[in-house]
Amino acid sequence: MSTLVANRPIQKSTSARDRIIPTNIPIPRETWYVAAFSDEVSEKPFTRRIAGIDMVFFRDEAGQVVVLEDRCPHRAMPLSMGKVCGSRIECGYHGFMFDRDGNCTDIPSQQTIPRAMAVRSFPAAERWQWIWVWTGERDNADASLIPDHHSLGLDRDGYGNIKFFVLEINGHLQLLHENLLDLTHITYLHPGLLDAGNAAAAGFRTEYEGNVIRLIREMPAGVAGKAFAHLFAIDEDTIITRELITEAHLPNLSVVRNIIRPADRPNEILREFISPFAITPRDDENTYQFVAGSSSFSEFFDTEERVREHVEGVKMIFEQDRLAIEAIQREYDRLGDQVQEVSVRADEAALRSRRVMCGMA
Amino acid sequence: MSTLVANRPIQKSTSARDRIIPTNIPIPRETWYVAAFSDEVSEKPFTRRIAGIDMVFFRDEAGQVVVLEDRCPHRAMPLSMGKVCGSRIECGYHGFMFDRDGNCTDIPSQQTIPRAMAVRSFPAAERWQWIWVWTGERDNADASLIPDHHSLGLDRDGYGNIKFFVLEINGHLQLLHENLLDLTHITYLHPGLLDAGNAAAAGFRTEYEGNVIRLIREMPAGVAGKAFAHLFAIDEDTIITRELITEAHLPNLSVVRNIIRPADRPNEILREFISPFAITPRDDENTYQFVAGSSSFSEFFDTEERVREHVEGVKMIFEQDRLAIEAIQREYDRLGDQVQEVSVRADEAALRSRRVMCGMA
Amino acid sequence: MSTLVANRPIQKSTSARDRIIPTNIPIPRETWYVAAFSDEVSEKPFTRRIAGIDMVFFRDEAGQVVVLEDRCPHRAMPLSMGKVCGSRIECGYHGFMFDRDGNCTDIPSQQTIPRAMAVRSFPAAERWQWIWVWTGERDNADASLIPDHHSLGLDRDGYGNIKFFVLEINGHLQLLHENLLDLTHITYLHPGLLDAGNAAAAGFRTEYEGNVIRLIREMPAGVAGKAFAHLFAIDEDTIITRELITEAHLPNLSVVRNIIRPADRPNEILREFISPFAITPRDDENTYQFVAGSSSFSEFFDTEERVREHVEGVKMIFEQDRLAIEAIQREYDRLGDQVQEVSVRADEAALRSRRVMCGMA
Repeated sequence: MSTLVANRPIQKSTSARDRIIPTNIPIPRETWYVAAFSDEVSEKPFTRRIAGIDMVFFRDEAGQVVVLEDRCPHRAMPLSMGKVCGSRIECGYHGFMFDRDGNCTDIPSQQTIPRAMAVRSFPAAERWQWIWVWTGERDNADASLIPDHHSLGLDRDGYGNIKFFVLEINGHLQLLHENLLDLTHITYLHPGLLDAGNAAAAGFRTEYEGNVIRLIREMPAGVAGKAFAHLFAIDEDTIITRELITEAHLPNLSVVRNIIRPADRPNEILREFISPFAITPRDDENTYQFVAGSSSFSEFFDTEERVREHVEGVKMIFEQDRLAIEAIQREYDRLGDQVQEVSVRADEAALRSRRVMCGMA
Repeated sequence: MSTLVANRPIQKSTSARDRIIPTNIPIPRETWYVAAFSDEVSEKPFTRRIAGIDMVFFRDEAGQVVVLEDRCPHRAMPLSMGKVCGSRIECGYHGFMFDRDGNCTDIPSQQTIPRAMAVRSFPAAERWQWIWVWTGERDNADASLIPDHHSLGLDRDGYGNIKFFVLEINGHLQLLHENLLDLTHITYLHPGLLDAGNAAAAGFRTEYEGNVIRLIREMPAGVAGKAFAHLFAIDEDTIITRELITEAHLPNLSVVRNIIRPADRPNEILREFISPFAITPRDDENTYQFVAGSSSFSEFFDTEERVREHVEGVKMIFEQDRLAIEAIQREYDRLGDQVQEVSVRADEAALRSRRVMCGMA
Repeated sequence: MSTLVANRPIQKSTSARDRIIPTNIPIPRETWYVAAFSDEVSEKPFTRRIAGIDMVFFRDEAGQVVVLEDRCPHRAMPLSMGKVCGSRIECGYHGFMFDRDGNCTDIPSQQTIPRAMAVRSFPAAERWQWIWVWTGERDNADASLIPDHHSLGLDRDGYGNIKFFVLEINGHLQLLHENLLDLTHITYLHPGLLDAGNAAAAGFRTEYEGNVIRLIREMPAGVAGKAFAHLFAIDEDTIITRELITEAHLPNLSVVRNIIRPADRPNEILREFISPFAITPRDDENTYQFVAGSSSFSEFFDTEERVREHVEGVKMIFEQDRLAIEAIQREYDRLGDQVQEVSVRADEAALRSRRVMCGMA
């Protein structure tokens, strides 16, 4: 193992509030997280680690989602290696069976069942295109704490939903939120893809409401850039204004809304794309990003080929984010508290989000 | 590294004796272990780590096995990267030569040989199809402590030996013994392959003699199941009774004996298959399982094709065991002392084996 | 993780000076190291870790090499993921720009630049075929401390230079120096390739001058061996004498000089091959070896095919060294202070080099 670390140039320490190391922020547990897209969970066991807990997911005969800790209390075998029997799951090692509440109902080699032979179960709720689980104390689970998909505009008449993909990123939850809270990165990390080189310099304002941080960026009239025009199905020469709103719902969701208007008809919406990104910790340093969308122009994605091309285009953009976040995580891992961070005004929202997240642990 | 670990549901602690964490049991050292199948060792150096010690194995001109620590005392080069010269081995870096007792006999650049220029040698004994080594203090090596292959029934007249394979499993020695000491797993881990669904529920009795633990399971009259019938070369429709005996010789061997009788002629043995599994620690959490057999019906394996098919069939079964053991090892690694274990009556022999193993360290 | 370690045979401890564990020697920092071959650095960013510091290398419009620490002071993004703009580099995340001295010159989202927004820069010097960097305190950088390539004989009239390759070896810097300081290994690690079996036994003398250690080996008259003759483009039957000189310039360079003379004309040089090996720590346990050469008979490497074949031949030899060094590093990693080392007279130069290196940290 290498212990040799670079000498750091001496410099004045930045202010105390900057010194929350983002990758050290404890993962909030008393909360809901998106654990899967709805179509990932079926009558076959499916396993995923959420907030450090291995969970097994399956649907019972009625289609209801069951979520248990993925470990048999007998000898620690993952239950996901067993099989679903109706609303119960049978361990694949010695055949012990557990119901949806995690209670053991059968032990093949004996009649009595020890009281302790039980596995933790998790509250789950299916909303929009995905399945939320509560990772905290069971009694605290409150479905009204799930962000309201309706008020986010995700089920509007005439809007079509898209399921893109889930990425597993080797980076801390907070790094994903900060990535979305400083969209000046659009111009440099995604050159030529999401703007015509003007996003970084565009002015913006910030709003704070509890665990919600909103950034509103008004981009002046101009052409959109070829790739962006293609993505939004507009004519390349159209002069547009663009409103770009990022809304972080800490700790589990970020919604990016693009509102495109013809420059000469400011009250008309030409295109609207609402992109909810569910951000779910796998553990302390790996995070799932569930990428989906709801658009006002879904009629343009009318063939499988067109949808596939659209998904691939979006995927390429997110791979650029992944590379950046993973490179940064490696630096923080390597340098720990010694890492240098010099912040600027555009970092205000990100720094605020660190404080909010720290308050949730 | 992830330090985030799942909250555990609160529960009454199980009894103290259950709390020997199997993956923490120290590896016994004052003992013999099978290090290789006989045909793995030749006049070329062969290296394998046994009980945490890298060893180099080779045969001298007379075919005698030599076992040395696989590290040149000069500059720590593995001797297995060198070459065998009769009953000696020459280091591949600077040409130092060592005899079967580990003494240095030649240093190319000088005439005198420092007394300390020596490498540890290990007592070895070739028995049946394999090579045993003693990993403890040299003076304590006693060949009579090697389990007696004759009394295990491994060289009976009319019985044929099979060498299957050696598996390296990422799991602690103890997990392999426990796997074999609770054969209720046959029904669930190997569904349809080793029983007709009745092994888990069959009654059994247990016998203890020093470091030997014996489980005898009498399975009632019935058909064997298609895959099992094929494996044992009996007609699918035959009504049989089956005696299934597991005999753990801690810490280095487990012998599973299947005795098949026609249900209507209880004094006649239709088939007998004796499967010695040598269980050898590579280190604290990796274990070799040497799988072999001796059968009363070897005349059925009379073509290369038939043998190959038989070996493949057995291999598939052991791959299922490997998946289970490795999944369990990961859970114990992750949770350590926090791991939940709720035991049942079928675990009595496994729990007993933990105490025996702890007494050997 | 395995904590089980082999019992060591009891032996008298070797003398105190032997007990500098080579893989524990601190990496010298106040020094120059070769960081790249000249042709590796262009107008595109190039990254390499040198002495534990990630560095980004590029050339400005005038071809001058710029070396900065490869980490944006804003959010720790590697600058090598950005792009070169003249003599500056732009971070690929949020577009911050840095000049050759590491000062930030542009922040897209604001006009003012915090004083602390700067990255460390490194003194660099281009010599012969490669680029040297100073890894210590900037003010101590003194170009006259770079070994003098002229006096090493690397730019003689009529001699031709070859760039072979750079190897990354998973071994400590010191292990590479020791490998070259005990060339008795030629006979055993490279059998049949670099001698006719006589190098190990040849007498040698040693000279010490500050940080330079020189070993001179005179090999008696004989044929060279087929592979060696081919490598040095001499007739297989030629009776030659060979002078083999290793000159370690600690901590960053080792030069091996082969001087071949006709046995019957001792004052005539038939072939001379000077092989400078730049030895550069990547970190505490990984080392780059930059392999190059200057030869008196470069006219024999007159076709691409002949050069390629020559490079491949040399590469095969270095892969043997790599295997040995990496195997030894694994043993030292595993055993740490417990590692056994019994030294002989041929180790005198290597042991001396340990003391010199320790004095440099």
